[in-house]
Amino acid sequence: MLKHLVLTSALCISLTACAQEADKKLDVTPKPEPTPISAEIGMKGEGWRKISPENLVLMDTKYGQIVIELNPEFAPGHVKRFQDMVKARAYNGQEFYRVIDGFVAQGGINTIDKKWPPIEIEVEQPLGDGTNIQLLGNDDLFAPEVGFQNGFAVGLDREIDKKWLLHCPGALAMARDSDPNTGGTDFYIVLDAQRYLDRNLTVFGRVISGMQYVQKLQRGDKDIASGVIQAPQKGDQIISAKLASELEPNEQPNYEVMHTDTPAFMNKINSKRVQSDPFFFNTPPQVVDVCDMDVPTELVDF
Amino acid sequence: MLKHLVLTSALCISLTACAQEADKKLDVTPKPEPTPISAEIGMKGEGWRKISPENLVLMDTKYGQIVIELNPEFAPGHVKRFQDMVKARAYNGQEFYRVIDGFVAQGGINTIDKKWPPIEIEVEQPLGDGTNIQLLGNDDLFAPEVGFQNGFAVGLDREIDKKWLLHCPGALAMARDSDPNTGGTDFYIVLDAQRYLDRNLTVFGRVISGMQYVQKLQRGDKDIASGVIQAPQKGDQIISAKLASELEPNEQPNYEVMHTDTPAFMNKINSKRVQSDPFFFNTPPQVVDVCDMDVPTELVDF
Repeated sequence: MLKHLVLTSALCISLTACAQEADKKLDVTPKPEPTPISAEIGMKGEGWRKISPENLVLMDTKYGQIVIELNPEFAPGHVKRFQDMVKARAYNGQEFYRVIDGFVAQGGINTIDKKWPPIEIEVEQPLGDGTNIQLLGNDDLFAPEVGFQNGFAVGLDREIDKKWLLHCPGALAMARDSDPNTGGTDFYIVLDAQRYLDRNLTVFGRVISGMQYVQKLQRGDKDIASGVIQAPQKGDQIISAKLASELEPNEQPNYEVMHTDTPAFMNKINSKRVQSDPFFFNTPPQVVDVCDMDVPTELVDF
Repeated sequence: MLKHLVLTSALCISLTACAQEADKKLDVTPKPEPTPISAEIGMKGEGWRKISPENLVLMDTKYGQIVIELNPEFAPGHVKRFQDMVKARAYNGQEFYRVIDGFVAQGGINTIDKKWPPIEIEVEQPLGDGTNIQLLGNDDLFAPEVGFQNGFAVGLDREIDKKWLLHCPGALAMARDSDPNTGGTDFYIVLDAQRYLDRNLTVFGRVISGMQYVQKLQRGDKDIASGVIQAPQKGDQIISAKLASELEPNEQPNYEVMHTDTPAFMNKINSKRVQSDPFFFNTPPQVVDVCDMDVPTELVDF
């Protein structure tokens, strides 16, 4: 554990940032190429895809299991690093040591370990033709356009030919120092949407099940030490983190996600945007917040 | 408890709505007039106000105390009813029986009690000259203009001369049936922002401390019985709910809230809107979500 934390600012996402460590050298192994998310058809049929077991993280806490889908299409280097650290059991027994209600729950190894040097930031990808992105269809406060790609909320800007993942509730992202290329070990899960962090920290996955357990995590005080939980309180433990692909095939949970580039999902967006139930005696504005749009996800019996 | 619930839709905010009870008669006692929120200067000096003890609700759960400020300026009838039910100890021992992660935590008496007939809805008030409202200063997805009045997030529409309280995280609002004038006993606390409910259900207070305990409440399954917690699971209890004014003066906690119609608070908005720290290598859009703006609140020693 770092001994002399200099916690200066709530902007300081990682502890190591706040400690202003200077001897971190960037990982020089070749960065992996973006890999498309598998579109393998699940047991629920054509409108759904099965999450690949190597992108499915099962993280156990005393409250219950947090299930995460990693996104190698937007952040291949971060996904590779997270998979490697999970497989090395680097997170087992570590804590969610900085949890600020309404902001983020941050966990990880909470130290500098030369085995895991910092990796290059991956905040955006080329937009290309935008195939596969389902546009939301109304304005957004933070991005020129927003929508969904494979169940992930995305922002896009045609002028700069970029797309990126959004800091919506449940987003999994990498903490870092002030220098962009200094993250790689400690992560956070977004509690309330924090869209101003978009394109500044690397989102590389999202919680698909168990956000109610993330919400139970012991909080720190945001006004003390940037929300780092202080003794005698302790952050809740990551009892274990595994990839589903590390389990025997017949023990791998089968999570399926509704495709988002379909008329069926567009109908879901529209029925949230247009509230036609007579319950609404004042017709709400016809708008959806991209972070408030659930993407149906199911654990299908196997 | 109601025996035969017909739970048809997630829109159905109250259980009684879903049960389609028809014999509810509106409370005919005269509706109280809006009462301005006291601007009594607190121990922190002129930039702060002390919350009036009669508008301060202390709600104990096994996780910790939820502290709520009621707003008699926007919803005098709802505040009066809630104060009356609290003083009658109507909520003690009752449950948060419908809790949907990322949506709302609903609690109350979960039955029809002729002692507490439905009250008239209070979703908006005349805007008047809008004195006392600090405008946010940027666009909003759901309202023509938004801002803050006495620490509460508000929407306003000059064309119809109305202002209203927003469904931001921590908002306290009243559940109801399809008919607007059918609420009065069962309330909900907003978890993630639900702005499409604005002007359709009566917001009458907000949680000023203890949202982390609300977030710990036992969840229901949103796909089963509209999120009502099913046996053998049980909703977490409201161990007790009291007004601070019911305590001896020397036992009343002194909560103070920063005034929001001041240059000091406008500076806080602007420093969130303009992220000038070099940490942000991609400058975020200069915009704040009204629901993501904390209003400083402190428990001051007494």
